[in-house]
Amino acid sequence: MRQLGVLDKGFLIAEKRETPMHVGGVSLYTLPDGADEQAFLHDLAANLRNADTLLPPFGDRLKTGLLGLTGATYWEPDPSLDLDYHVRHSALPKPGRYRELFTLVSRLHGTLLDRQRPLWEIHLIEGLGNRQFAVYTKTHHAAVDGARSVHVSRCMLSTDPGFVREESPLSLQAWNAYKAGLKSAPATPQPRYSDTNLRRVSDAIKFSFDSGGSIVHTVSGLARALTGRDEHLYLPHLSVPRTSINTSVDGARRFVAQSWPFARIKAVAVAYDGTFNDAILAMCSGALRKYLQLHAELPETSLKAMVPVSLRREGDVEAGNAVTAISADLATHIPDPGRRFSAIKASMRAGKEYFGAMSPREAELFTLLMQTPSLLMQPLGLISRLPPYNTVISNVPGMSETMYWNGARMDGSYPMSIVTDGISLNITLVTYAENVDFGIIACRRSVPQVQRMIDYMEDALVELEDAAGLSTPAATRTGSKRRKVAPAKPKKSGAAGTNAGTKPKPRTKSKAKTKARPKAKPATTGRKR
Amino acid sequence: MRQLGVLDKGFLIAEKRETPMHVGGVSLYTLPDGADEQAFLHDLAANLRNADTLLPPFGDRLKTGLLGLTGATYWEPDPSLDLDYHVRHSALPKPGRYRELFTLVSRLHGTLLDRQRPLWEIHLIEGLGNRQFAVYTKTHHAAVDGARSVHVSRCMLSTDPGFVREESPLSLQAWNAYKAGLKSAPATPQPRYSDTNLRRVSDAIKFSFDSGGSIVHTVSGLARALTGRDEHLYLPHLSVPRTSINTSVDGARRFVAQSWPFARIKAVAVAYDGTFNDAILAMCSGALRKYLQLHAELPETSLKAMVPVSLRREGDVEAGNAVTAISADLATHIPDPGRRFSAIKASMRAGKEYFGAMSPREAELFTLLMQTPSLLMQPLGLISRLPPYNTVISNVPGMSETMYWNGARMDGSYPMSIVTDGISLNITLVTYAENVDFGIIACRRSVPQVQRMIDYMEDALVELEDAAGLSTPAATRTGSKRRKVAPAKPKKSGAAGTNAGTKPKPRTKSKAKTKARPKAKPATTGRKR
Repeated sequence: MRQLGVLDKGFLIAEKRETPMHVGGVSLYTLPDGADEQAFLHDLAANLRNADTLLPPFGDRLKTGLLGLTGATYWEPDPSLDLDYHVRHSALPKPGRYRELFTLVSRLHGTLLDRQRPLWEIHLIEGLGNRQFAVYTKTHHAAVDGARSVHVSRCMLSTDPGFVREESPLSLQAWNAYKAGLKSAPATPQPRYSDTNLRRVSDAIKFSFDSGGSIVHTVSGLARALTGRDEHLYLPHLSVPRTSINTSVDGARRFVAQSWPFARIKAVAVAYDGTFNDAILAMCSGALRKYLQLHAELPETSLKAMVPVSLRREGDVEAGNAVTAISADLATHIPDPGRRFSAIKASMRAGKEYFGAMSPREAELFTLLMQTPSLLMQPLGLISRLPPYNTVISNVPGMSETMYWNGARMDGSYPMSIVTDGISLNITLVTYAENVDFGIIACRRSVPQVQRMIDYMEDALVELEDAAGLSTPAATRTGSKRRKVAPAKPKKSGAAGTNAGTKPKPRTKSKAKTKARPKAKPATTGRKR
Repeated sequence: MRQLGVLDKGFLIAEKRETPMHVGGVSLYTLPDGADEQAFLHDLAANLRNADTLLPPFGDRLKTGLLGLTGATYWEPDPSLDLDYHVRHSALPKPGRYRELFTLVSRLHGTLLDRQRPLWEIHLIEGLGNRQFAVYTKTHHAAVDGARSVHVSRCMLSTDPGFVREESPLSLQAWNAYKAGLKSAPATPQPRYSDTNLRRVSDAIKFSFDSGGSIVHTVSGLARALTGRDEHLYLPHLSVPRTSINTSVDGARRFVAQSWPFARIKAVAVAYDGTFNDAILAMCSGALRKYLQLHAELPETSLKAMVPVSLRREGDVEAGNAVTAISADLATHIPDPGRRFSAIKASMRAGKEYFGAMSPREAELFTLLMQTPSLLMQPLGLISRLPPYNTVISNVPGMSETMYWNGARMDGSYPMSIVTDGISLNITLVTYAENVDFGIIACRRSVPQVQRMIDYMEDALVELEDAAGLSTPAATRTGSKRRKVAPAKPKKSGAAGTNAGTKPKPRTKSKAKTKARPKAKPATTGRKR
């Protein structure tokens, strides 16, 4: 039995009906030529269920003692594992557009996993047009983080459209074969911190609230005590402006997704001498600025975004959650896109330098300090009054080649993360093939117009391109209503040959625009649908 | 703002992820001739959403004070009511049999309602064959009981296939029109009991557990104190045998449904000089006996069933939950069907006489005593060790005529109730037209073979018929694999004329039998599919 680390357990402690703590995503696939949808999806389901032993913790359930989650918590094999429960068939109502897909996965993402069973579900979804189908996955954040999710996906996929795996991609056998094929050997798991650590942090925080003290003071003091540093401490909860996306949330979600060409975002990064991640943040910042401007609530100070940074070392695929977070200044108060980019870049650089000076142990401990209070504040109902950040923008490295699952081409993979009280909007993105696939999840009540963020993100990208004098052809521009777009050049694919590289562009638009069924041929990414 | 009664609130207090406390059901409809499924279902959804003011509490959310549910709790209008959230479109994966329908509604029934919103959902489900569609509804038991659900359904339906209601059947306007059309005027709502009552009961029970006392002693003492009676007290938790259906449950459900002709069950009741309800219990008893025999765990003493009895007076459609419960002896240890029937009849008669001697106030108070401990024991985790009954068998009076919803004929209406720790199987039935529509809901893990109960119930009914010398034609027999069945005579319908009266017979059978799509013409109830 493997014991859960304190951070993993934090996701279980913080979870309630209104704030499920699972992560997941929806992927789009195109059926192989000539395949029958019903037969193919049933074969995929059978393939998923075909395992003697599952990769931990996919076959494991939680085991707690008399103290419940406040005591030691373990993963133990589920003695009556019921794979039919975890692997599910679903369908979209007519007309089966991406809009119906997003509605379904929003609902599926808004319900709690059953803690009596292994903490995951996978839904094979039929009813899309154009020979596409979708796969929605959902795994508790206590069981995997985003980076590990990508590893599990890779284990399922192949660059070879002719490759068919017999055993389940969730089986230990498939996982070991996948690991053996990696270039660098997996590292040993990181040491975990004890319950004493968690209790010490949580007791101190509770005491602080009970005695009317300041959480900032408490966290700051603990950080000094535990890291042995007393300088350059940047702390969340300080100077975080309040907006309508920083309220308590209910249990319902809205999800939208969109792909952008990697090359467009990378060109912006190069033009402003920043990283790819800086460009992502600048794009999201511009969109958030516009959203808040149009709601007449743009704060005078900058929004703060939590930007998770993986502590996983290269090739270490075994560790569960190993992530810390930088508090990035989104510079939403700066009108000029170039100056805004510079401010974001400086903020990210400062954050990385801070962690760069720490040992991995120190950095993880610091993460505990920064995240545990937030997680513990959820059940106390305090976080909506004192959000540590305005939003989360998470960049998960994905796969650079076109991938196939037993012959079905993956057209896109859109992550679905977590919203919490106080932080009702989360933007997560994965790079895939020539694209960046964005998934935005929000509280249905707090952010009712979240689908407009997609348009605003395209507008923000265009603004950055224009300010940098980039002559990005209109052909590769996406989503802006005011621009004419022409078909982009289809991508060449390695083994598939035929029509690989045509990638769909999931969209939800205003009602008038969403009446049509997906076209017979999905728009190449960058085309306007 | 209307305050919740103590019993209603008990359903909220007892609720957890593994034991949702909502009731609902799935109804089957046939599209009107010539109607397009997609357009018709969108019109129905629009109709459901077309309301200025909703019938309470469909437009209300819960409001609690600082004490949460332990303090006074009210229904208050939801200031941001979002009917798109509550009224949903869903679809079945291929091949769209009743099996796929039952899988979907089992899943939908296994997730918690969002307490930040009005506590109901309705799903319009497409993808069945044979021009049928399904409607799944889900309402928290704190908001309605089974009898009120039927009233709400009636408000939605009409005996006239040409009748189309403009305003939502959930609107206050439609409800008032419905009430005005009733023969007897609605009575004033019953007086509710105070939180002090609940607290007194719950404190006494907690004290009893803390001090190692016996719950039976506590309940018995309280019952004497509150009812002023000290004789003939029958108490649950006494001599309830333990079986595999009386364990703690997880959050997943299995649902099966089936219709039987009312006339068959009524004939059995007459033959044994009992009531219709006695015959239902005898049928369920025979099935449970067989199920437990085949699992080699038939107890030597009789199973006990909780049989809810409505305290609602004739014509009183306004009251929420107004139900008490008889603890019926199912006589599962008696092999002879006739003697078993007699024992059940005697047990039900004794229970009714007991309540017949009480005032409604006494009866309701008694119900509080009997149900509140069970509800309070759920969070304490004690009920699976001390179940007050083995199962619940609930008979909800329904409608005797064929009904239409804006022209779509209702073919059947199958209730879906609640399972709790210790009572992982619930049988609820509604009479409709010439049928009795049974819905059986069970914990997916504790009762994995619940679908077999359908066959065993038919077997039990045949056994009762045979023992009484009833010459029921094989044509109207249902579900027994060993019998040849021929088409039954289609029922004559009032206004519909054409093919009204052909009613589907939902079934889930063993894997080998469920491969086929629903036939072009659904089997009349009583036919073998």
